[in-house]
Amino acid sequence: MFKVGIIGATGYVGVELLRLLLNHDDVIVTAISSSTFKDEEISSVYRSFFNKTTLVCEDKSEVINKCDVIFTALPHGLSEEIAAEAISKNKKVIALGADFRLNSEESYEEWYGKKFACKSLHPQSIYGLPEFNGSKIKEYNIVANPGCYPTSISLGLMPLLKNNLINTTNIICDSKSGITGAGRGLSLKTHFAEANENFTAYGIGSHRHTPEIEETLSYMANECVEVTFTPHLLPINRGILSTIYCETKDNLTLEKIHEIYTKQYENEEFVHVLPLGNTAEIKHVKYTNNCHISLHQNYRKDKLIIVSVIDNMVKGAAGQAIQNMNIILGLPQNTGLKLIAPSF
Amino acid sequence: MFKVGIIGATGYVGVELLRLLLNHDDVIVTAISSSTFKDEEISSVYRSFFNKTTLVCEDKSEVINKCDVIFTALPHGLSEEIAAEAISKNKKVIALGADFRLNSEESYEEWYGKKFACKSLHPQSIYGLPEFNGSKIKEYNIVANPGCYPTSISLGLMPLLKNNLINTTNIICDSKSGITGAGRGLSLKTHFAEANENFTAYGIGSHRHTPEIEETLSYMANECVEVTFTPHLLPINRGILSTIYCETKDNLTLEKIHEIYTKQYENEEFVHVLPLGNTAEIKHVKYTNNCHISLHQNYRKDKLIIVSVIDNMVKGAAGQAIQNMNIILGLPQNTGLKLIAPSF
Amino acid sequence: MFKVGIIGATGYVGVELLRLLLNHDDVIVTAISSSTFKDEEISSVYRSFFNKTTLVCEDKSEVINKCDVIFTALPHGLSEEIAAEAISKNKKVIALGADFRLNSEESYEEWYGKKFACKSLHPQSIYGLPEFNGSKIKEYNIVANPGCYPTSISLGLMPLLKNNLINTTNIICDSKSGITGAGRGLSLKTHFAEANENFTAYGIGSHRHTPEIEETLSYMANECVEVTFTPHLLPINRGILSTIYCETKDNLTLEKIHEIYTKQYENEEFVHVLPLGNTAEIKHVKYTNNCHISLHQNYRKDKLIIVSVIDNMVKGAAGQAIQNMNIILGLPQNTGLKLIAPSF
Amino acid sequence: MFKVGIIGATGYVGVELLRLLLNHDDVIVTAISSSTFKDEEISSVYRSFFNKTTLVCEDKSEVINKCDVIFTALPHGLSEEIAAEAISKNKKVIALGADFRLNSEESYEEWYGKKFACKSLHPQSIYGLPEFNGSKIKEYNIVANPGCYPTSISLGLMPLLKNNLINTTNIICDSKSGITGAGRGLSLKTHFAEANENFTAYGIGSHRHTPEIEETLSYMANECVEVTFTPHLLPINRGILSTIYCETKDNLTLEKIHEIYTKQYENEEFVHVLPLGNTAEIKHVKYTNNCHISLHQNYRKDKLIIVSVIDNMVKGAAGQAIQNMNIILGLPQNTGLKLIAPSF
Repeated sequence: MFKVGIIGATGYVGVELLRLLLNHDDVIVTAISSSTFKDEEISSVYRSFFNKTTLVCEDKSEVINKCDVIFTALPHGLSEEIAAEAISKNKKVIALGADFRLNSEESYEEWYGKKFACKSLHPQSIYGLPEFNGSKIKEYNIVANPGCYPTSISLGLMPLLKNNLINTTNIICDSKSGITGAGRGLSLKTHFAEANENFTAYGIGSHRHTPEIEETLSYMANECVEVTFTPHLLPINRGILSTIYCETKDNLTLEKIHEIYTKQYENEEFVHVLPLGNTAEIKHVKYTNNCHISLHQNYRKDKLIIVSVIDNMVKGAAGQAIQNMNIILGLPQNTGLKLIAPSF
Repeated sequence: MFKVGIIGATGYVGVELLRLLLNHDDVIVTAISSSTFKDEEISSVYRSFFNKTTLVCEDKSEVINKCDVIFTALPHGLSEEIAAEAISKNKKVIALGADFRLNSEESYEEWYGKKFACKSLHPQSIYGLPEFNGSKIKEYNIVANPGCYPTSISLGLMPLLKNNLINTTNIICDSKSGITGAGRGLSLKTHFAEANENFTAYGIGSHRHTPEIEETLSYMANECVEVTFTPHLLPINRGILSTIYCETKDNLTLEKIHEIYTKQYENEEFVHVLPLGNTAEIKHVKYTNNCHISLHQNYRKDKLIIVSVIDNMVKGAAGQAIQNMNIILGLPQNTGLKLIAPSF
Repeated sequence: MFKVGIIGATGYVGVELLRLLLNHDDVIVTAISSSTFKDEEISSVYRSFFNKTTLVCEDKSEVINKCDVIFTALPHGLSEEIAAEAISKNKKVIALGADFRLNSEESYEEWYGKKFACKSLHPQSIYGLPEFNGSKIKEYNIVANPGCYPTSISLGLMPLLKNNLINTTNIICDSKSGITGAGRGLSLKTHFAEANENFTAYGIGSHRHTPEIEETLSYMANECVEVTFTPHLLPINRGILSTIYCETKDNLTLEKIHEIYTKQYENEEFVHVLPLGNTAEIKHVKYTNNCHISLHQNYRKDKLIIVSVIDNMVKGAAGQAIQNMNIILGLPQNTGLKLIAPSF
Repeated sequence: MFKVGIIGATGYVGVELLRLLLNHDDVIVTAISSSTFKDEEISSVYRSFFNKTTLVCEDKSEVINKCDVIFTALPHGLSEEIAAEAISKNKKVIALGADFRLNSEESYEEWYGKKFACKSLHPQSIYGLPEFNGSKIKEYNIVANPGCYPTSISLGLMPLLKNNLINTTNIICDSKSGITGAGRGLSLKTHFAEANENFTAYGIGSHRHTPEIEETLSYMANECVEVTFTPHLLPINRGILSTIYCETKDNLTLEKIHEIYTKQYENEEFVHVLPLGNTAEIKHVKYTNNCHISLHQNYRKDKLIIVSVIDNMVKGAAGQAIQNMNIILGLPQNTGLKLIAPSF
C-alpha cells in the first residue's frame, strides 16, 4: 500500500480526489490538509464522508512528511514551494494547479502575472497527459496535471496534429463547462438563482487555459499552433463539451479521419472514439475518467468538427491525477478508475 | 380592436403566442385551433390559462373565417394551403413554420424534401426579420417568421455583412438552445432524466436552419455567404446563445466595430448592443423580445467573436411574430412586447 | 399617475417589484434606493433593465420625499423608522419585511429578538392579505405585506377556519420553496453546485414565519390555531408549494369542502380553486399573482390534504404588494397584475 | 464468482443494477434480458457502457438458465412466473417489482387490481429490508426488494415503532422523489420543459406504496399502523427525502429519541443517524446505498419530525437489491456498495 496525501483537500478538486482515492485498492490516504478547515474532520465539512473516513485536515507539512505521493489541489502559485520541499524529501508530487503546466516561463508570466518561483524544479516536471506523454511520466518527480479545458481539446485534436493533417492557424475551440469548474468560492456568477436557467460565455479569447492549449497542441504538431478559445458556463454540475472546428489539409474523408483516431486511441483505456453518426454527450462520461470523441463535417465538407467530452472533475482533474499516480507507482492506469457513468 | 387567431395553438410556439396576445391591448384573440385537442378548452390543456380565457380549440377553418390576422404555428408543409385560403379571403398570414422562409425552391426541396405546394403564393410573402426588412413587411400578405437560430445569427452578423466587413466564407456559428426549441413532442432526448445535467450537440453541420441562415446572410451581404452551423441542446427551458466566429477584412478595431453595431441598431426597440467589456447572457433576455449582442476578439486580435442572445420562444418565435403583426397592422412595433426580463 | 418608490430596490424582492411596477399603467416609479449600489443605475446592477429604465439608486430619503407610496423591501428591523418618517409626510407605506406583520409585540420579540421600534405606529398598520382583510386595507397608512409561506398557507386554510370546520391544534404545513426566497446574499446553501440536484429542509419547526402563520390563522378561526411548519428548499428559482394536513370536525365530504372553498374565493381575482381530481402545480402560477388550491383526502378519508401554490416572489412578495397598493390607491386589484403563467 | 443476471436490464432500475454489479468483485453478470431491446448490446442502448461491457440483451429464459441469482427489474405482475421457473431450477430470485412485497393478497388485489398469480410461492419470499429482517433473509429463495418510498419511511420510523413510542394512527409521511422514480417511459409529466422549474404532488393519499408502508410499519410495531402518505415529484434526477410527522406517547426528549435511533442503527453499515442540530440532505446520500436520518421537534415540542433521505435508485432499488444478494450469498453486506456520495 502506497501512502498518499492531498494538500488542499476541501476545495472541489481536492474533495473529489479524496473520494476517488478512498476507494482505490492500492493506496491509503494518510493525510490531508486545508488552510480553511484546519483541524476539522473532512466529514464535518462534507457530510458525504460521514462514517466513511475519520481523516482530519492537518497542516500541509504533515502531508508532505507522511506520504509518498503528494497531490496539490491549490490555486496556481502555491505548489512550487511545496514541490521543492517534497522533492527534497524524495517524495513525488502531482500538481493540480497551473504552476508546472507551461514550459515557457515567459508565457507563464504573461498569463499568470508572475515568474516561476522555483525555476530549477521545472526540468523535473512533466505535463501529465498520459495519452500524449505516456510512460515518460514515470521518470519525473513532478507531474503537472493538465487543465480541464486543455484535456478535452488536446485529446480531441491529437490524432490530427501528430499526423500533420490540419491547418494549425485556424482552429476554433468552443467549450462549455459545468459549474464546478468555478470551484467552491462564492460569487454571484455561481449563485443558484443567477446561474440556473442561464447560459453565458466568459474570458472570451483570453482565458488562462489558452497558452496551455496552444503549447500542448504545438508539441503535438511539432509546429506553432494557434487557437481561438471560448469557454462557456453550463448550468449543470459537471462535464465539459468542446466543439472544435478545423480544416483538413488534404481531402481526407471522414471515414479516413475516423480510422486515424481509432488507431491513435486503440490501446487507451479512457479515450473512446464513437462510431461515425454518433455524437458525444456529457452524460456518457460523467463521474468517469473517460473521454468520448465524435467526428463530424459540415454539409459542404470543408470543415471538420470534433466533439470531445470529459468530466471536468475526473478526467479534467482528480481522475487524471490518479491516472498519473498509477503510472508513477507502476500500477495499471485504470486502478481505482474503472468507473461507469451512471445513466442519470 | 383587430381580430387575430392561432392555428396550432397547443404546441409550445402556439401557446406562447396565445399568452402574449391575450395581454396585447389592440387585438382580440377570436379563435384558436388544434388538431390534437379539438373542442377542448385551452385552459384544460394548459392549466396556466385557468380563469384567464375561455377559448376552445376549434377547427382551423373557423380561425381563418373569424380573424383578420392568422398565425400558423405548425410544422413545415402545413401552412401553404392555409395561407392560400386565407389570402383568398383577404386575410393576412404570419407563418411560424419554415414553409415561406426560403426563397429558393431548390434549397427548400433539398433540405425539407418537398417542393413548394403553392408556388404562386411565395411572391406575396416576405421574410419577417423586421430589423432587416423593416417597413417593407407591411406590403406583403404573408410573413415568413424567421427561425430561432437564424434570428440570433442574422442579428449578430447583419452590421458586418451590410457593410461588407468580413470574410464571408469562413463563418462559424456555434449555437446553444434551450429545450423548448424541441417542442412538446415526447422523446428520449427531452425526457427529464436524460436531458437534465447533460449537454450535447445535434444536427452538426446539417441542421435545417442552415440554408435559411445562409440565404438571409447572403441577402444582407449581397454576395454568397457560407456558414458552418452547430446547434447544441441546453438543459434549460428557454433561450438561445450563438457564439459566432469570423474574420474582419481590414484591421478594424473592436471599438470601431462596436460603433458600427451601435449605429445599425440605434433605432431598434429590441436589439441592444452591450458596452464593450460585457458579455451577453441568456437570462437578460428571457421572456422578452430583446436580442442582446456583445462583441469580442481573441487575444491575437485576428478573430472577431460575436455573442448574440435571444429568447427562442419570443424573439425567436412568438414575440417576433407579434412584432410582425404590429407592423402589418400599423401599430408601434413594441405594442404588447414591452417585456422586461425577470431577474430570476 | 401616482408616484411610487422602492427602498431596497436591488434585492430580489425589490427588483421584482420594480419590474412589475414599470409595466403598471397607473403609477410611475419616481425613485428607488439601495444602500449597496448607491448612485448606480439599476440597469448596470441588473442588465435585464438595459434600455428599459434610466433609474439610478438614490438615498432612501429621496424615495420618501418624491413618492406618494413607498415600498420597503428590506430585512426586518429597518422599516419602522422609514414608515414613521413617511407617515409624518402623509405618505403611504407598504412594508415587505416582517416589521409590521405581527400584532403581538411579545411574539415579535420572541421570534425576531427585538421590540417594536415605533410602537405607536402599529395601530396604523394592517396585515395586507387582501383576500382576508379586503377593503379595510384602504383605511390604513401602513400595509404589512405578508410573508411568502404564510400567504400560501393562509389562503389554503382560510375557508376551513372561517367556517370553523377543522381541528385547530393538529395542522401540519409542509412547505417547499424555490431558492429566490433566500435572496441575493451569497451562501454555500445557495451556491449552484451545492443546491443543484439537492433537496433539504431547514428551520424545521422553528422558522420565523411560524408565529405569523399562527397569528393569521387564529384571526381567521377566531380561536387559537397551532401549526407545525416545515419549510424545504427546492432547486428551482421560484414558487412555493405547501402541502397542508388537517382533520375536519364533521364528516364533511370532499365535494362539500370544495363547494365551500369555491364560494369563499368566487369573487377573488387571484385565488383559484381547482376542480376536484386536479393537483396544484408550481408552474401554473409562476410569474403571476395567482394562488392555485387543490383539495384531497387520504384513502381512509380521515385527513384532508390541501395543496396551495403561489409564486413566492409575486403573490408571496412583490405582486401582493402591488395588489395592496392598488387597493390603497382605489385601483382595480388586478391593475398591472393580469399576468398569465408562461407554460415553460 | 457467483453468476448473476438481470431480467429487465434496460429500464432505469435494471441499468443501475447492471452498473453497480459490473463493479462488484464477487459476482459476474452472466446474462441480461430486455423485451424492448432484444439482441441489442446494452452499450448501444446506454452509451455509458461503451467499452465497459459487451453484454447483449437476451431472452429472459437465458438469464434464468445461466445465472445463480436472478434480479427481476420489471413492473409488478411479471415476476411471479419468472420466480416460479427460477425456483424450480434451484435459483434465487430478487424481485424489484411489487409482486412479493405485500403479505396480504387482499391488499395486493385492492391496490394492484389482481390476485397473486402463484400463491404457493409467497411463503418462500421475504421482504428484503435488511435492517429489519436481517439474516432471516438468507433462508428464503425469493427476496421482495422494498419500494423506494417505503424504504425511506420504514427506516425513518423503525426505532420508534419497535419500541412502541408513538401514536400509530396519526403519522404523516410527506415524501419528495427525484424524477427517475418515474422510469424511462415517456410522458408529459417527465418531459423536460414541463418538469423543469416545476414541483407538484401526485397520487395524494392513494399511492400504491401506501399499503406496503402500512404493512411494514405494522410488522415493526406489532400493531396496526396508519399513515397518510403524499409523494411529490422533484425536478432532480435522484433521491428521496421523506419528512415524517408523528407524536410520541410519553414526554420523550429529543436527546433520548436520538439515543434510541443511534443504538438501533449502530451496527448498520448503511443507516446513519445525524447528530442533533443537523438536517439530512439528498446530496449526502446520492449515488450511495446510505440512508441519512435527522431528528427534530416543532417549537411546541408536541410533534416529532423525522427527515429520512436515500437515493431512490440505490438504497431505494438497485443498491438494496445487491445488499440482499450479498446476504443470500454470504458476502459482507457492503460488498460492491462502499460508495461515497460525490460532493457535487
